[in-house]
Amino acid sequence: MKAVEDKIRAEGKIGEGDVLMVGSFLNQQMDIALLSEAGKEFYRLFGGEGVTKILTIEASGIGIACLAAQYFGVPVVFAKKSRTSNVAGDVYRAPVISYTHHTTADAIVAKEYLHKEDRVLLIDDFLAKGNALVALSEIVKQAGATLVGAGIVIEKQYQGGGDALRAEGMRVESLAKITAMDPEHGCTFAEE
Amino acid sequence: MKAVEDKIRAEGKIGEGDVLMVGSFLNQQMDIALLSEAGKEFYRLFGGEGVTKILTIEASGIGIACLAAQYFGVPVVFAKKSRTSNVAGDVYRAPVISYTHHTTADAIVAKEYLHKEDRVLLIDDFLAKGNALVALSEIVKQAGATLVGAGIVIEKQYQGGGDALRAEGMRVESLAKITAMDPEHGCTFAEE
Repeated sequence: MKAVEDKIRAEGKIGEGDVLMVGSFLNQQMDIALLSEAGKEFYRLFGGEGVTKILTIEASGIGIACLAAQYFGVPVVFAKKSRTSNVAGDVYRAPVISYTHHTTADAIVAKEYLHKEDRVLLIDDFLAKGNALVALSEIVKQAGATLVGAGIVIEKQYQGGGDALRAEGMRVESLAKITAMDPEHGCTFAEE
Repeated sequence: MKAVEDKIRAEGKIGEGDVLMVGSFLNQQMDIALLSEAGKEFYRLFGGEGVTKILTIEASGIGIACLAAQYFGVPVVFAKKSRTSNVAGDVYRAPVISYTHHTTADAIVAKEYLHKEDRVLLIDDFLAKGNALVALSEIVKQAGATLVGAGIVIEKQYQGGGDALRAEGMRVESLAKITAMDPEHGCTFAEE
């Protein structure tokens, strides 16, 4: 999606440790017009799949999932990153490693919000090694629900997570796919 | 807002420790149609105030803020709850105590996303003792920006946080105000 690539070129900053900082429009400040367009694009890609729920993980996936959900007309469920006192009853649970923050936590969803009849679309802001998607798809599997695929705003394709999931049969659609990145040359994107 | 009160009556569960569980539509599963209506209502209330940014705090405020921001046509900025490696540079920072989770963290916003010219609307899902709003308003103050007010989905008014902030001059608008709550009688709402 050209608008996302243009925004990364204009505002993305490449930091130490291979981190792409897009806090100006994606994961601290959120450009709602752009992300609403992203949501519409996810609907174009997955609108025919009979999606009944959008599943994401806190925190920065939530806004994008909510904007996209308006087009699908379905609820959003977000996985929490550790068990908290206001998640009642039985939960689905899968470990997730954060590439950016060097932490491990459990992704947790209360069982009452995902059922075997659900057709689930995963949405997230970033895909690098794919750990969040693996955890979310594990939760979908635990629920016995059907995984329709994943919609991602920015994929760091060169880190391999997305292609590994595609090789396993997951439909992963990323609006901007970065094939190379360094502070001197900036980001290179995959050809459409 | 009657739709929010009706939803609380229909789906809210009152748990131990005076916790209102609304995970079915607000803070784990999100009813996007209802929350989009909530966003529209915030725009009716604050649309004339020249808002330039909506400020919220992760995690469950983010979705509501994004849905509301579509009506205002402004970006959302969300405070993170601890300093993370992808928040670059100088930050505003204020302590916030979570009533539900019994934890203390810093609310953090990168300075580049809030400026003294900004007119800021705070949005959050819950208001109980008001700790999150106090932290966010402190961040607005640090930025030298103008605080327009706060839009809240559910206020537990009997906990006093909202009224304390109103007494200090903050405009706080809550779509459902709970004046009393117990497992036997459920929630009582303030008269309009």
